[in-house]
Amino acid sequence: MTRPEEGAFRPFEYPLLIRESHLDTFGHVNNAKYLEIFEEARWELITANGFGKKEIEATGLGPVIVKVTLEFKREVRNRERVTVRSVCLDYPGLLGRIEQCMLREDGQLACRGEFLFGLWDLSRRRLVSPTPQWLKAVGHREP
Amino acid sequence: MTRPEEGAFRPFEYPLLIRESHLDTFGHVNNAKYLEIFEEARWELITANGFGKKEIEATGLGPVIVKVTLEFKREVRNRERVTVRSVCLDYPGLLGRIEQCMLREDGQLACRGEFLFGLWDLSRRRLVSPTPQWLKAVGHREP
Amino acid sequence: MTRPEEGAFRPFEYPLLIRESHLDTFGHVNNAKYLEIFEEARWELITANGFGKKEIEATGLGPVIVKVTLEFKREVRNRERVTVRSVCLDYPGLLGRIEQCMLREDGQLACRGEFLFGLWDLSRRRLVSPTPQWLKAVGHREP
Amino acid sequence: MTRPEEGAFRPFEYPLLIRESHLDTFGHVNNAKYLEIFEEARWELITANGFGKKEIEATGLGPVIVKVTLEFKREVRNRERVTVRSVCLDYPGLLGRIEQCMLREDGQLACRGEFLFGLWDLSRRRLVSPTPQWLKAVGHREP
Repeated sequence: MTRPEEGAFRPFEYPLLIRESHLDTFGHVNNAKYLEIFEEARWELITANGFGKKEIEATGLGPVIVKVTLEFKREVRNRERVTVRSVCLDYPGLLGRIEQCMLREDGQLACRGEFLFGLWDLSRRRLVSPTPQWLKAVGHREP
Repeated sequence: MTRPEEGAFRPFEYPLLIRESHLDTFGHVNNAKYLEIFEEARWELITANGFGKKEIEATGLGPVIVKVTLEFKREVRNRERVTVRSVCLDYPGLLGRIEQCMLREDGQLACRGEFLFGLWDLSRRRLVSPTPQWLKAVGHREP
Repeated sequence: MTRPEEGAFRPFEYPLLIRESHLDTFGHVNNAKYLEIFEEARWELITANGFGKKEIEATGLGPVIVKVTLEFKREVRNRERVTVRSVCLDYPGLLGRIEQCMLREDGQLACRGEFLFGLWDLSRRRLVSPTPQWLKAVGHREP
Repeated sequence: MTRPEEGAFRPFEYPLLIRESHLDTFGHVNNAKYLEIFEEARWELITANGFGKKEIEATGLGPVIVKVTLEFKREVRNRERVTVRSVCLDYPGLLGRIEQCMLREDGQLACRGEFLFGLWDLSRRRLVSPTPQWLKAVGHREP
């Protein structure tokens, strides 16, 4: 049995500085901002793997999120340097799962997200099977 | 057996117009915006029930979200009028659960969120038991 | 000599509640939020006058902002009800000017914005003369 | 006669990648996002010069914007690397002026902002004269 990191999908790390604009009126990173940060990290992931906004527009195929689970474990503070570690856990059929962990500088887990997602045909408005190019985008190792 | 609506907590409805500013570059309401909208609806809920930002600052006690689950069921479109229906499902100990459903004009479910939350002591940085004022804020019916 | 309100363009009023999400970490409505609010009010204006997102996409013509001036006069507070009053001052050639005033409940001016704008051909990427439909959108009175 | 760059205040450069989250539903960086980006650059400037959020909270003194002028010159596109160059132009009395230019990779000016600002006493709610620490924060060269 292998851990996901040792599996079929390559993890991707995205370092980020928590800024004043991430904070709400109570001085905390609020829950919607975590989703924005995780989305930013997923854009980095797929763009780095050759399937960014340009390719989405060219192919008419783009990611769609079906379900999100977020667990908030520890606070992060202003000017803290965090790392978002994203790894696709599996992608057995029409839907895959990606895990995103926000890690503090001391390595402790601040927030864990799990996203059930698929590939969306933008004109026909329905889920389609992952293309090889899209599997590569979410980190699938070359065969 | 009663449904939550018939239970100990009063549901709260918040009507909202989907606007251009809710849309991302693909013309969709993106997932972080749903969390912003649900948070906006929770502020309305607790403010209407007498425990808004002012009372949070006065008491040093405020809500904290521990876990979020979001399920995206149907697309909503620009200028669509939606309703967010929020109801506390239960609050047995330190943590309660609130369900938020975004309903389209035709009554169909667009998105369902479930939030595990608690009351946070802002100075001592820890969860505390719900006060009567806070239970009222999340819709608990008068005894 | 007439004041702008008595002139060729009809003013448009957009009432708005200042919410927790408008506040930054210092509890103030920060300057970027004023621009978001003014943009929201301009979307209401042109949508109410029959030239919203749908018509922009159908015609391939949409508004573009060339210059913005914002003057911050008085603070607005959380849960304050404000009104954004928008009126086109003039539109002599390729460019028009729209004034937007955020007024507090007591009628005092919180913020004044002035926007130099034009109509943009989205495919040819250049300014075009205002069409009759667009002049109507920004409040031009019927002839 | 000296240009501002050769004057009493040091310019500050903040490099930035234009991301998907900066784009609105028409695929453009919209005008409120420019203000967010300029604010982010000013936070970098004052934090790098020793007067960030922590110092604002400790002293009870923070920046306040009185007037903003933005001129939009050229479009920036997704994934473009831009630089925000900020320089204080002058600070003769209670109010100073800071100029912020967003430059594209080819060196061309995308957007120019000019901000009239002051130092705000957060408890007494009024403008105060710049302290030496604050003058240093906005780039004043050591005497």
